[in-house]
Amino acid sequence: MHFTSERRLDDGVVEREFTLGEIPGILWTPASAPDSASAAAPLILMSPPPLGLRTTYPRLAGRARYYAAEYGFAAATIELPGSGERPRWAAAEEARAALRRAMEAGEPVGAEIIDALVLPLVDRAVPEWQTALDALLSLPGIGGPVGYEGGLISIGVRLAAVEPRIVAAVLFAGSLVPAAMFEEARQVTVPLQVLLQWDDEGNDRQASLNLFDAFGSKEKTLHANMGGHTGVPQFELDAGARFFARHLK
Amino acid sequence: MHFTSERRLDDGVVEREFTLGEIPGILWTPASAPDSASAAAPLILMSPPPLGLRTTYPRLAGRARYYAAEYGFAAATIELPGSGERPRWAAAEEARAALRRAMEAGEPVGAEIIDALVLPLVDRAVPEWQTALDALLSLPGIGGPVGYEGGLISIGVRLAAVEPRIVAAVLFAGSLVPAAMFEEARQVTVPLQVLLQWDDEGNDRQASLNLFDAFGSKEKTLHANMGGHTGVPQFELDAGARFFARHLK
Repeated sequence: MHFTSERRLDDGVVEREFTLGEIPGILWTPASAPDSASAAAPLILMSPPPLGLRTTYPRLAGRARYYAAEYGFAAATIELPGSGERPRWAAAEEARAALRRAMEAGEPVGAEIIDALVLPLVDRAVPEWQTALDALLSLPGIGGPVGYEGGLISIGVRLAAVEPRIVAAVLFAGSLVPAAMFEEARQVTVPLQVLLQWDDEGNDRQASLNLFDAFGSKEKTLHANMGGHTGVPQFELDAGARFFARHLK
Repeated sequence: MHFTSERRLDDGVVEREFTLGEIPGILWTPASAPDSASAAAPLILMSPPPLGLRTTYPRLAGRARYYAAEYGFAAATIELPGSGERPRWAAAEEARAALRRAMEAGEPVGAEIIDALVLPLVDRAVPEWQTALDALLSLPGIGGPVGYEGGLISIGVRLAAVEPRIVAAVLFAGSLVPAAMFEEARQVTVPLQVLLQWDDEGNDRQASLNLFDAFGSKEKTLHANMGGHTGVPQFELDAGARFFARHLK
C-alpha cells in the first residue's frame, strides 16, 4: 500500500489516496485519530458501484466524511476490477454489451447474461478487498471491527460470507444477482441492513425481497424507500451509521 | 381532561394519569418542560394494541420515557374502545369470538370477520383520539407538531388520513386490515415509517407489503425485521425517534 496524496478537509477529516499494487483507492480517517491501539477507529469498507471511483467520488466522499466526522469511523474504498482506469477484459465487455442490448430492447435480462456479468467480477473483486483489508488494518489508528457497505450486492454477499473480519454490512438491493449467490447468501450470518428502492427501474422488487429472505443472518433489517435506483434518501446515511455504531463499537 | 395522578420518574420524566370523560389515559412529559409556547414540546400519540393499557403499560412507558428523556418529546396514550376497563359491546365480542374460532381452526380469517372486528373500532376510536389531541394541545408546554405511532394499523391509517395536525406516523404492519382501508391508505400523504415483522405468525407478509405500497405518502420507509409479531427489535425505538425528530422539529 503506497500513499500518493494526503489532504486535510475542512471538517478535519484526512483524505489519502493510495495504490495497492495496480489498484487505486482512497482512505478517510477522523480528525483526531486515536493514537493507542486499544482506541483504534473501526473501519468501513465502501465498495463503489462499477462506474469508476472518479464518477462516484462525490457520493463516496460524502458518506465517508459523515462516518469519520460524526462517528469517528475510518472509511476506505478501492476501484473495482474493470472500472475507472483499470484494464477491461473481453468477457466482461461482451457481457456488458449483452446487458445493454437486452435493456434497450426492453427484454428481461437472462440468467446467462447476469452470470457472465457478475460472477467473474465477484471472483476478482473479493480477494482484492481482502488484500486491501490486510493493508488497511496494519495502519496505525485503524483497528477492527470492520463494516462493509457496497453498491454491487453480489460482492457484498460473497465478502460477508467468506471474510470473518467483517462483522456487519449495509447492502443495496439489486436483482441482477446470479442464482448461485442465493446459496452464498444463506451462508451470511452477520447483522445486515439492506436498502431497497421500491420503484427501482433496473431491478425487480420481488427478486430483491427473495434475496433479503435468503440471508442466513438472525439480525437483518430491510429499509425500503420510495423512488428509483438513485433515489436513496439522505436520512439512510445516518440510519446506516447508527447500524454500524451498534455493531462496530 | 382531568388529571388523577402525577409522579416524577427517576429519569426526570413526569408521568400523569388522566381521564377524558370515561376514557383513561397517560401523559409523559420531559424533565425540563419548556415554559414558552415557542419552545413547546412536540407530541407523540401512542396508540396501544387492543389489549388494555394495564397490560401494555411497560412497553408504552418504556417508549414514552425514551422519547421524553432522549428527544424532549411529550407522549400520550388513551385506552381503546372496548379494551381494559372500558365497556365491551356485543358486536365486537362476537367478531372477536369469530376471529378466535377461525384462528384455532387454522382457517383463513374471512373479510367479513375482519370488517366486523376492525371497522367499528376505527369508527369509535378515531374521534376519541381527535378529542384527546384537542385536550393535550391545550396544555402548557405541549405544542404541535404531532406524531402518531400505533398498534392497530387501521386506526393509524384513518387518523393519518383525516387529522391534519398529525404530520408523521410510525405504523406497525398487520394484515387484519379491511379492504376499505386500502382506499383510505391512498389518502395518507404524511411521511411514514412502517414496521413489518417478516415472520409474523398472525399476519400475511404479502398483504402487509400491499398496504405499504398503497399509502399515498411520497416519503414512506418500510423497516422489515426478522421474527414474530412481538419481536420488534429494540433498536427500532431509536429509529422511530429519529424519524420523528426529522419531522417534528
